[in-house]
Formats: sequence, C-alpha cells, structure tokens
Amino acid sequence: MSLLVVGTLAYDTVETPSGRVEDVLGGAATYFAVAASFFGPVRLVGVVGKDFRAEDRALLQGRGILLDGLQVAPGKSFRWSGRYTGDLNVAQTLDTRLNVLEGYSPRVPQAFRNSPFVFLANSPPALQGAVLDQVGPGVLRAMDTMNLWIESAYDDLLAMLRRVDMVILNDAEARAVTKEPFLIRAGRRMLELGPRIVMVKKGEHGAFLFSHNHFYAIPAYPLEHVVDPTGAGDSFAGGVMGYLAQAGEVDEEHLRRAMIYGSVMASFNVEDFSLNRFRRLTRAEIDARFDEFLRFTAHP
Amino acid sequence: MSLLVVGTLAYDTVETPSGRVEDVLGGAATYFAVAASFFGPVRLVGVVGKDFRAEDRALLQGRGILLDGLQVAPGKSFRWSGRYTGDLNVAQTLDTRLNVLEGYSPRVPQAFRNSPFVFLANSPPALQGAVLDQVGPGVLRAMDTMNLWIESAYDDLLAMLRRVDMVILNDAEARAVTKEPFLIRAGRRMLELGPRIVMVKKGEHGAFLFSHNHFYAIPAYPLEHVVDPTGAGDSFAGGVMGYLAQAGEVDEEHLRRAMIYGSVMASFNVEDFSLNRFRRLTRAEIDARFDEFLRFTAHP
Repeated sequence: MSLLVVGTLAYDTVETPSGRVEDVLGGAATYFAVAASFFGPVRLVGVVGKDFRAEDRALLQGRGILLDGLQVAPGKSFRWSGRYTGDLNVAQTLDTRLNVLEGYSPRVPQAFRNSPFVFLANSPPALQGAVLDQVGPGVLRAMDTMNLWIESAYDDLLAMLRRVDMVILNDAEARAVTKEPFLIRAGRRMLELGPRIVMVKKGEHGAFLFSHNHFYAIPAYPLEHVVDPTGAGDSFAGGVMGYLAQAGEVDEEHLRRAMIYGSVMASFNVEDFSLNRFRRLTRAEIDARFDEFLRFTAHP
Repeated sequence: MSLLVVGTLAYDTVETPSGRVEDVLGGAATYFAVAASFFGPVRLVGVVGKDFRAEDRALLQGRGILLDGLQVAPGKSFRWSGRYTGDLNVAQTLDTRLNVLEGYSPRVPQAFRNSPFVFLANSPPALQGAVLDQVGPGVLRAMDTMNLWIESAYDDLLAMLRRVDMVILNDAEARAVTKEPFLIRAGRRMLELGPRIVMVKKGEHGAFLFSHNHFYAIPAYPLEHVVDPTGAGDSFAGGVMGYLAQAGEVDEEHLRRAMIYGSVMASFNVEDFSLNRFRRLTRAEIDARFDEFLRFTAHP
C-alpha cells in the first residue's frame, strides 16, 4: 500500500570520530523515504532550495521515491551542522539554518491524499496538523517529534497526539512528553495521550513497542562500529513504516516484524556518512540481517 | 551442582525517590546468594562483624545458604551508604566503611573447595585470586569487578581475567577494562583477555552475552516502578549462576536461559529495598515472570 512522508530535506555538515563531511544530503524525510523505499514506493512532501543538487534528486528518484510533492523554493535548502563525540549517543548541534523552511507549509498533492500509510517526520506540530487536514484517515497515521516542540509547542503536540494512530519517538522524548522518568511508565502513559501504538527508540539499546494489550522489546542490532548516527531514528521509522505499508497490515505480528526491520535499517544507515550506506544496500542484505537478528535474539 | 560465592556482606543505608532505609542487609555476596538460592543450595564465604544480626543470619540459612565460610570478626560489619536520584541508573556513594573487610582474606572451608560453580563477587582482584588458589578447576569459575579495581589494580585484574571462564560485569566496566567506547567491541575485546564467556549487564537496557562463536542480546524486564536498584547486578549474577549450577550445563542454550533468569531476579530485587522482595518471593513467581519475558520478546 502507498506510503506518504512529510518532513525535512537538508544539507548536513557532520563531524564524528570517523571524519567530517560537508553539505551532504540529509533531513528526516530523506532518511525515512530512502529507508522505506527498500520495501515499496514512497511519496514525499517537503521543500528544498534552488541549491538542491540534481544528483540528490536523482538518488531519490532512483529509489522509486515520488517527488510530486517536493517544492523547490527560492533560496537555500535547510542546513544542519552537528558533532558527535564519545559513544555517539548524543548529537551536539553546532548550527541550524532554516532557510527555505521558514514560512513553508506543506501542500500534499491531490494524488497523494488517499495514502493509506502516512508518516509525519519531525516538524512543528501545527505543520503536522496541517498535513493531516489534507489527507484521508487511511490505515495508519504515524508521527515523530523532538524536544524543541515538546518545550515550545506542548499543547499543539498534545493535540497532534490525539489525531494519530502511532507515534515513533526516542526515550528522552517519551520521558519529556509524559514528564515520567521511568521509561516503561512513560511509554504506557503515551498511550493515554492518544496513539494506539507507541514505539520508543533507545538508540544502541534497542526499542520498545507499547499498545493497549501488548508489549514488545528488542535490543539493537549489535554493531561493532558506528561511523555516523545521523538519521538513525528516521531510518528506523522508514524501516517500520516501509515494512508495514508493504504488508498492508498493522497487527501485533506485523508490528513486531516492523520494529526489527526498523532496527535493521538504522543499523545499516549508521555504517557510513549521509545516505551512503543506503546507496549500495540491497534488499537481500536487509533480509539477511533481519534473519541474523532473529538468531541472536532467539529463545533458548 | 554446588555453587560457591565469595564476596561482601554489608549493612546499607540507601536513599531513593521511594524512601530511605538505614543499616539494612546488603552486600554483593548477600544479594547473589539469596537470588541464587531459589535455584539450589549456595555456599557462602565472607566476613561480618559482631554486629551482624541473628535475624539476617536466619534469613540466609532459611534460604538454604550454607554459612560454614562466614567468618565473624571483631568489629563492625562493612557499611555502604548511597543515594539514587532521577531514573535510578547511577548510585552516588555517600560513605563507605570497610570495617571488618580491612585486612580480611577469604578462607574457603575444605568442604567447599570442590564446588563446580564458583562466583567471585566484586572484591580486590588479588583477593579473588586468593580464592581461586583454594578451589578446584570445577565447571565454571565466574567473576565480577568494579571501576575501583579497574583504576587501581588493573594488572591484577587482567591476571584474574585470564584465570576465569566467565565474567559478568556492567557496560561501564566493560568499556573501562577494554578502553573501548563501543560496547559491542568492548564485549568482544573482553573475550581476548581470557574469559570464554562475557555477560555485559546494561541495567534497564538489558544484557549482552558474548562468546567466541555466539552472541545473544536481551532487553530488561519492563518494570513500571523501581524502588531501590541496590543489588540488581548481584541478583542478576545470582540468577545466572544459580540457574546454571542447577542445570549443571554451560552450553549456549543454558547460557541464554540463565541470562533471562538473571534479568528476572534483578527485576524482582529492585521492587523493594534491601532483600525484602526476595523474602516473599516464590519459585513459581520467578518462572511466571520468565515465561512472561519469553512472550514479550517472542519472535514475530
């Protein structure tokens, strides 16, 4: 089934212990869309500047990502610059330039409005709401958020949570939204705020799945080396939603499998800078790592 | 098969968001022994002062723990005082009084020297070595350690690691021993230092199992509320070793099950202060939680 993602495309400058890259393709919607594209076609809505490179457009199109909703605005593309040190768990933002994001309001093309699977990547909650106003109820509406909106637009965020089926967010965000230091309680409390499915990403510590009658936990794929964690969370969400949209079902079994695929996609993404690992990734590699994941978490 | 533990017994004063307790029974060997006692008899070697309470001795004996190796020395029992805040992941030590531990060297009673399963709870590596000098090779010799010895007795610690079959330690310790920030690499590097089995405890994030041809990962049991994390790691080790000693086998399948039992024992322990949860715990509750653990980590 069709999958729509709305969110940012960016040019990132990133420094990690493995090196430094400048003005490379990034952005939440980009990572999500490319990760999800391994499972089926993806419809993308977002904005870039006149400086958006033809090769980056070609990369997205080459992955079967439909760009009818990609607006090209006067000015420069959104830019983010950050640095990771130590065990790479936390990004230090060095600079953010909104550029074309300033004043942007997403317009979902008519042909995308019936998308049964919708993912609202991290954006101001009011913009996420404006997207929901344009699409049908579909099968599964999911969203991400970030601490900035939890702090600066809490009421808007709560209103959004009541409108979606699923939220995919990280542990710090789940704690911040619910003001609950215990993560298990934070996850369950999230369910009371609206979504019927809550996925909590814990980076190298795996992920939790909460629903009203179901709990599931997985460790992360055990990587020996991480080159660049940028986009891991969005790649995770892309794997989750890509798999679910491909399956067309959102029951307990598919959600568990989706979470493992999410973990697998995140694990590939962090093996190289930008989307470089995805450029040479194959579906066979994904399925092999999925099977490997099952083996090292198999019950005795 | 018989299980021997050598380590500290203590009186703890602990403050957590749930309350404060003073001079309550604690100590690494105590938590270990009581957790392991749910799987079979345990032999304990350690030292207490004249102030060690009859009721605490009775608790240990009531759990089938053999105290022939428990020395009562003139003076006061070892005391530790600490505080937990926030999400309870890190203890802040407020005070440590070695008391009877000062100058103590463990003597393993003749009847305990043939124990096939031996656990060296956290102690100075030289003392752990002195214990190994007194026992036979057995089936499985395992040890714990702590940052204090990694910093102050690194060479002794490396010598100990070459003498044991298994090490059970936490993530920060594994990173510190190997000087390797990536945990997966740290765990694998630990294997090169001697032990053929490495279990890395990650608190609320679960645990990893490394061996030369095997990797296994589990999340932690999802608790909604933690009253007091003191002794969680030792209860984990007690569950692991108690189960293995009961099974009498240390193959891949039993190690996986052991790690889940360890996780289950730790999860019970943190539900109350001191060893209070273990006082009213039953083997049926343990097995029920083990089964529950299998369900929420079951493969799709």
